[in-house]
Amino acid sequence: MGASLAASVKDRQLARRVVIWARRAETRVACSEALWCDQVFATPEEAVGEADLVIVCCPVEAIHPLVVRISGHIKTGAVVTDVGSTKSLVVRQCHSIMPEGTAFIGSHPMAGSEKSGMAHASGDLFRSKTCFVTPLVDSHEGSVEAVLRFWRELDMEVATVSPEGHDEIVANISHLPHILASTLCSFLSTKDLEWRNFAGNGLRDTTRVAAGNPGLWKAILEQNREEIVRALSQFENELQSLKAAIANERFFEVLNHLERGKAYRDRLRPGGGED
Amino acid sequence: MGASLAASVKDRQLARRVVIWARRAETRVACSEALWCDQVFATPEEAVGEADLVIVCCPVEAIHPLVVRISGHIKTGAVVTDVGSTKSLVVRQCHSIMPEGTAFIGSHPMAGSEKSGMAHASGDLFRSKTCFVTPLVDSHEGSVEAVLRFWRELDMEVATVSPEGHDEIVANISHLPHILASTLCSFLSTKDLEWRNFAGNGLRDTTRVAAGNPGLWKAILEQNREEIVRALSQFENELQSLKAAIANERFFEVLNHLERGKAYRDRLRPGGGED
Repeated sequence: MGASLAASVKDRQLARRVVIWARRAETRVACSEALWCDQVFATPEEAVGEADLVIVCCPVEAIHPLVVRISGHIKTGAVVTDVGSTKSLVVRQCHSIMPEGTAFIGSHPMAGSEKSGMAHASGDLFRSKTCFVTPLVDSHEGSVEAVLRFWRELDMEVATVSPEGHDEIVANISHLPHILASTLCSFLSTKDLEWRNFAGNGLRDTTRVAAGNPGLWKAILEQNREEIVRALSQFENELQSLKAAIANERFFEVLNHLERGKAYRDRLRPGGGED
Repeated sequence: MGASLAASVKDRQLARRVVIWARRAETRVACSEALWCDQVFATPEEAVGEADLVIVCCPVEAIHPLVVRISGHIKTGAVVTDVGSTKSLVVRQCHSIMPEGTAFIGSHPMAGSEKSGMAHASGDLFRSKTCFVTPLVDSHEGSVEAVLRFWRELDMEVATVSPEGHDEIVANISHLPHILASTLCSFLSTKDLEWRNFAGNGLRDTTRVAAGNPGLWKAILEQNREEIVRALSQFENELQSLKAAIANERFFEVLNHLERGKAYRDRLRPGGGED
């Protein structure tokens, strides 16, 4: 997501300069050749020195350690944000270590793909998608405003919500769908593998997100464990009640269930963001 | 699916004549104006009189009653097939009532859409998609061959399997994904409806099939009840074991689960049929 974000910022001239640090040396070389990159630094500490806005784009479990590294090197008035998929833990950890006159404000742009890496970078990944911004009660107001403005300038639809509210929402609308897709695939992998040849678009769409990076998702499930277990338990109840209705041939109830599902699906926005 | 099928047959000149009966008078009028339709009949009994191949395209619960109506009106040597999503019950019911010198051979082309009706008809719906053909042990061989040939001439990938084998396969790769998508939607409809505005492509893809016709799906779940309940119970075990791993912070096991899911998903055919 880092490359897509930098390209979008450059396209729209939202920053005078776009400077980059990336963990892998090959990525730094690739960035130094990109049109959207003004300068590449060898360390995160150097990269953030002159920045007004620092955007940490890395797996959720790496955000806090990286913010620890850079926090002593950012200038007064700078704002740090991130693009992580979970917020409660990260936002509290990062908020508490920021030096006076700086701020960490959590963000979660719902724009990604099961395909990661620079090869899939896209300058128009963000438009019309949802971006959560998750300030704390005592977050610095001007810094919150700066982060909100930044995502709005990328034409994102910004929603302000507490870190805990965010984690409950994404547990249900993003992490639960991912778990179901992944579990459907791991379940089917225990069956006759020839069946895979018969798969229709239904199975393909239902499971697309299961191709996402397992390491990234393990960290997400780890960081949002409590909300996810709660959502999963509630979902299991819903599934069990449908199964009981089918098993006991209460098909009026089954129809009602299918109709409620369709009514919800029919009213999902057609375009929009990705998790 | 009937209109898409007729259009494909006419396009490829697979039949000298394409004649139609449809239940609704408006559909019959629309068909009579379509280029791919040579003649429309007012009753199914009349429509089948001269046909070598009769294709029953209707909801699964209506197949047997319709085959009962036409079985006395088809000519010797004619073959009747269908496009229903479940096979065990329908194939045995229909097979047993066919007059001497005629045959019912079940088919299930995995080519459909959550959008039904003539407005969404497409002449290229079938290419490269899977079509199950489900003969019984005592089905007439020449009739089975005729049905296999027909679907192959539409460039479908034909799989011959017993009706029971078919129903087990689709319970797992088609009906289970549908139930999960639908249940995810009915579950989310019990939550804050504003969350719907935050949905990304992940939720959208995972739930696409939940927009399918509830009446059609109720009938499918009804006809394939036993296999579906079995698949659902097994899936619930898989889901429960993942939930336990998350809840008990066994994240190495969670990672393993996600990796098995990804390995399966990465090897799904990219194009192909729809359920």
